[in-house]
Amino acid sequence: MGASSIEPDRDALRRALEAEILAEIPLARAMGLSITGHDGESVRLAAPLAPNINDKGCAFGGSLVSLMTVAGWALVRLALDARGSACDIYVADSEVRYLAPVWQDFEVVARLAEGEDFASLFDGLATRGKGRCRVRCHVPLADGDAATLSARFVAIART
Amino acid sequence: MGASSIEPDRDALRRALEAEILAEIPLARAMGLSITGHDGESVRLAAPLAPNINDKGCAFGGSLVSLMTVAGWALVRLALDARGSACDIYVADSEVRYLAPVWQDFEVVARLAEGEDFASLFDGLATRGKGRCRVRCHVPLADGDAATLSARFVAIART
Repeated sequence: MGASSIEPDRDALRRALEAEILAEIPLARAMGLSITGHDGESVRLAAPLAPNINDKGCAFGGSLVSLMTVAGWALVRLALDARGSACDIYVADSEVRYLAPVWQDFEVVARLAEGEDFASLFDGLATRGKGRCRVRCHVPLADGDAATLSARFVAIART
Repeated sequence: MGASSIEPDRDALRRALEAEILAEIPLARAMGLSITGHDGESVRLAAPLAPNINDKGCAFGGSLVSLMTVAGWALVRLALDARGSACDIYVADSEVRYLAPVWQDFEVVARLAEGEDFASLFDGLATRGKGRCRVRCHVPLADGDAATLSARFVAIART
């Protein structure tokens, strides 16, 4: 009981964000996106293959990069939600690598890039009303990654 | 009449490719994608804002990067179609910059990156059954680009 009053309820935040994304982003609905996990350091999103196929019958590159971009955005958003910080969050740039075709339902894992920490993001927001961080996402398969994304996000405090 | 028997019918190829994309890629249908122009050097794709909004009511980053990725892919595909080359075309990697929000229906223009030419792609296909090229795409607005993408595509001859 003590812990639950100090720690944010990550499951509730995750479910609320999933509902918000599905309500407000038509393409996320079309993709069948779900947020399947969040532990404070990483977030996991999933999508079924069927609505995300390409002309070859494997996962459409646009679906992979979209899910990775939303996963990075969700990682930042959930960190800010857990602190009660209301911000608008934008993706600034990204580098994407497509390494292997995906022939099944897929998942994205997003976490901060190496050397990044949320403290810098929060400090920037507190002192300048604007914070940045770099996120790394990947689409894991049994034998390696199908795709990776490294992206910078900017959070701007709502005034 | 003479020219039409030598030059490929670019409008027919463009319409056939649009129909194929819409038939085979559910997310392209969800985005309302259309191929609005092709002159042999550049291809233009368009999408309405409504099915592509994000939580802020402007264009979703996933829609922008998806449309740019499909535009690059379509540029390569139409160049190969015009030669009658049947290939599978894959995006290998991309760098994306999100520069300004998009509050309206939007368009993507794709052309080969500076210093690239289709001759190298065709040569690779003829000699090794595999060709590569780098494409540059942008989402033009009245006062500059809303987003840019630089991507490498690989074409593999169908055997």
